[in-house]
Amino acid sequence: MQIPMVHNILEANTNVATELKDFFGQKGILVLNLMSSPGAGKTTVLERTLTDLRDELRMAVVEGDLQTDNDARRVAATGAQAVQINTEGGCHLTASQVKEALKSLDLAGLDILFIENVGNLVCPAEFDVGEDFKVTLLSVAEGDDKPEKYPLMFHISAAMLLNKIDLLPYVDFDLDKAGRHARTLNADISLFPLSARTGEGLGAWYDWLREKVRAKRSEAS
Amino acid sequence: MQIPMVHNILEANTNVATELKDFFGQKGILVLNLMSSPGAGKTTVLERTLTDLRDELRMAVVEGDLQTDNDARRVAATGAQAVQINTEGGCHLTASQVKEALKSLDLAGLDILFIENVGNLVCPAEFDVGEDFKVTLLSVAEGDDKPEKYPLMFHISAAMLLNKIDLLPYVDFDLDKAGRHARTLNADISLFPLSARTGEGLGAWYDWLREKVRAKRSEAS
Repeated sequence: MQIPMVHNILEANTNVATELKDFFGQKGILVLNLMSSPGAGKTTVLERTLTDLRDELRMAVVEGDLQTDNDARRVAATGAQAVQINTEGGCHLTASQVKEALKSLDLAGLDILFIENVGNLVCPAEFDVGEDFKVTLLSVAEGDDKPEKYPLMFHISAAMLLNKIDLLPYVDFDLDKAGRHARTLNADISLFPLSARTGEGLGAWYDWLREKVRAKRSEAS
Repeated sequence: MQIPMVHNILEANTNVATELKDFFGQKGILVLNLMSSPGAGKTTVLERTLTDLRDELRMAVVEGDLQTDNDARRVAATGAQAVQINTEGGCHLTASQVKEALKSLDLAGLDILFIENVGNLVCPAEFDVGEDFKVTLLSVAEGDDKPEKYPLMFHISAAMLLNKIDLLPYVDFDLDKAGRHARTLNADISLFPLSARTGEGLGAWYDWLREKVRAKRSEAS
């Protein structure tokens, strides 16, 4: 009984995700699904990105959390549009939740929609939410064994942000080892060692965003 | 259709968990369910605990991971019995998986069975695995907002280990704030700020374990 049910839930989600993807494609909006463990720094990376690129790109955020609207408030403080989804215990966002959240956003002229998923390195990997790319953050405080131990998440991500590199002197984390493991799971993954706190390494991440926005625009036109 | 199915899965799990709890109760084995985000330091805390207390307590470990037997090998290197469960994508351990794993352990004379759950601050909270107490780790690198954002996990835990306090000078983490939030969710939660890396604060955690072992023994006798 269990397997067909799970299959139906995934299939229903994929149908809505495909619908969203078509919708975003027509509008030329780049959509990124940000995932990580709790506390890897998704919201802090977003705060920096929204602030540093606000003069050149129009961006909005869908925030997913079990409880609280703390993250939407942090993100909105940068001046960006933000809408909070509370999953009330659910361990990942669904495409239907994102579809519902879009009603609260003005999408006109938008370049990037960031979807910050629930902090979880497992469940969100299985549910598309209409994104062009999945982006996974890994804090160096979490340990360099995480790609090997949570392989699906890294296998399906277009980019891995290795955040909190300002902590490298104080933790046992081998950037090369983490990158090597991620590349055995996904040879094409883009790696960005950075610190959202100090700003180090953010430039390469911003260049990746700019390139993806350009590609999306030229697809749409 | 979905809700009754989820209900049945939870109920079936609870039945096996109750059976395990009776079994452990008869044997006088203290069982602890260790949970946290990926990379909060569950395995490192276990390595230290198993090493430091090996002359006074007999301990064994059930390790839960999506993939790899890295953690069971790390734990076994301390001389403790360890058995690895791979959930193959599953975001939490189930009572049935633990029951199956017990076949690989010699339980005679055991004082403590540690069950290290899958790294995940959401799903494992909903599935008992026969434990006396749930113990949640929070690394200070994850941020002091986590009890507020992932309330169920802290609400149901008897103890919270605030790990990696050696990183406090380098991160924005308010120990008092995190403890306060945890106590609003669960007034009786025991708080242990510690560093598995430097050993600071481990003594209070060990005293808690000793006290719980004594209580379990006197219940069983």
